[in-house]
Amino acid sequence: MGEISKAEFITRQFQRTHNKRFENYVLTRIWHGVNSTDVKMITQQYVIREDGCALLDAYFPQFNIGIEVDEAQHKIKENQKADKQRERDVVQAIGCKIYRVDVTIDIDEIHKQCDDIISIIKNKMNVSEFEPWNIEEDYSPEYYIKKGIISLEDNAAFRRHIDVLKCFGIYYKGSQRGGVEHPINDDVLIWFPKMHARKEWINTMTEDETIIYEENEDPIRNKKSVDIWINQERHTRYVFSYSKDSLGMVLYRFKGVFELDVPATKSENRAVWKRTGVNVETINKVLKGNKI
Amino acid sequence: MGEISKAEFITRQFQRTHNKRFENYVLTRIWHGVNSTDVKMITQQYVIREDGCALLDAYFPQFNIGIEVDEAQHKIKENQKADKQRERDVVQAIGCKIYRVDVTIDIDEIHKQCDDIISIIKNKMNVSEFEPWNIEEDYSPEYYIKKGIISLEDNAAFRRHIDVLKCFGIYYKGSQRGGVEHPINDDVLIWFPKMHARKEWINTMTEDETIIYEENEDPIRNKKSVDIWINQERHTRYVFSYSKDSLGMVLYRFKGVFELDVPATKSENRAVWKRTGVNVETINKVLKGNKI
Repeated sequence: MGEISKAEFITRQFQRTHNKRFENYVLTRIWHGVNSTDVKMITQQYVIREDGCALLDAYFPQFNIGIEVDEAQHKIKENQKADKQRERDVVQAIGCKIYRVDVTIDIDEIHKQCDDIISIIKNKMNVSEFEPWNIEEDYSPEYYIKKGIISLEDNAAFRRHIDVLKCFGIYYKGSQRGGVEHPINDDVLIWFPKMHARKEWINTMTEDETIIYEENEDPIRNKKSVDIWINQERHTRYVFSYSKDSLGMVLYRFKGVFELDVPATKSENRAVWKRTGVNVETINKVLKGNKI
Repeated sequence: MGEISKAEFITRQFQRTHNKRFENYVLTRIWHGVNSTDVKMITQQYVIREDGCALLDAYFPQFNIGIEVDEAQHKIKENQKADKQRERDVVQAIGCKIYRVDVTIDIDEIHKQCDDIISIIKNKMNVSEFEPWNIEEDYSPEYYIKKGIISLEDNAAFRRHIDVLKCFGIYYKGSQRGGVEHPINDDVLIWFPKMHARKEWINTMTEDETIIYEENEDPIRNKKSVDIWINQERHTRYVFSYSKDSLGMVLYRFKGVFELDVPATKSENRAVWKRTGVNVETINKVLKGNKI
């Protein structure tokens, strides 16, 4: 199911560093020094951390390690963070360990700092829990169906609605709907929200990604919706949020299980979805549609 | 005398590969794999070879090794060769060994090819004749004064006229002249030609860099010049040709000793300078001007 090769993936990651020559230098050095195609490295990755959202120069999802290249022009990068990160691929990286490389010094010192990071990564590859990067599985529903569970810590992401739905036994040919009923759990909707304003509906998510607000910009329709949310809607949602990955391709990323906070929804006059779970079970059966 | 650090130099070399992601990937891999700041690597280097002028993706002057990264879009690069290479830094690389890396295949195969080249370079570093890259000496007259000779195979280059002149005992503060008399050898002019058309004077050099033609576009002035060349001019020139280096900075590059071919000059009605030597002696004395 992998749409691109590792060579394509990693060279495109470095392409994203091309306007910053020291960043390119340090990140290629670390990648080539680690010298393993079992390791996944992502450049310019937005992550959710304890202290809010951050744009890391590089991120290693298998080890939850980030790298920051400290150039003189560091401030410029800070400003760029204000760009439309909500539409970008964002990963949970709570507890992410950040390593900084100072490139304003002598080349041998730059190398020494890189070599230290390379050693750390190589050590982490030697533990038994290390799972080699399998690009085929990166966006594969089959992987999660086999695993039986999707967890927030997996940073699971899928290319299309139908890939998400397969994880729950639904084999449609296509789906453009914002949400699809879970085939077994009566209270659950599988939801594909876009976390930014679009026509009519406004969805927003808190920085820590634990609350989603949903409202309609038309007050009359909004009021009607609040009634439906409270009285008729399924009160649990498996959230697969629309985003774009580091190469600009659409992704639906698992954000957890959210439940409607009815009192808050009433008092705030908008749907208030609160995260109540970080795992969902997948289903290894065809319950709806026809598996091809 | 080095104006930039090795970190500046090498990151700027890679910056030149930024529009070709596989070239950037392969060359950074080889550089980081060789893992020595004793090695000099130049990207997008024009070289004079047996088969004419070529643009190499990378060149290692210490080993006379070139690297070509074979991408699908290879033809595009061929077209770019037609650009103003005469104004660019060109090095003699007769006998240059070219290694090709095919990047249209699997990442592990790309790595294997790079690793083979890394091994070859590491082996060449282990021989006793290996001279570590000293960026301080790259454009330093002091280095050649101490050495006592400038050879074509050194690929010697200098930043300014005054740096060249110092090699011959001339310590001027500045010089904008096209040529300066050698302080000892009565027949020698130290010449700084620009190898492209400029106002009035047209200098051209053959592809193999063994003949330089010089003429004036004004027929009357040209005839007068031919007379002067034959009857009054010094008949030997130490040629330091104007060019630009890989970072766009001006360089005066040693091209050899050229002598006027008087019969050819008469018959062709333009100065015909033929290369008769590949070495010149430097002078470790102050003969003109004041050493500061």
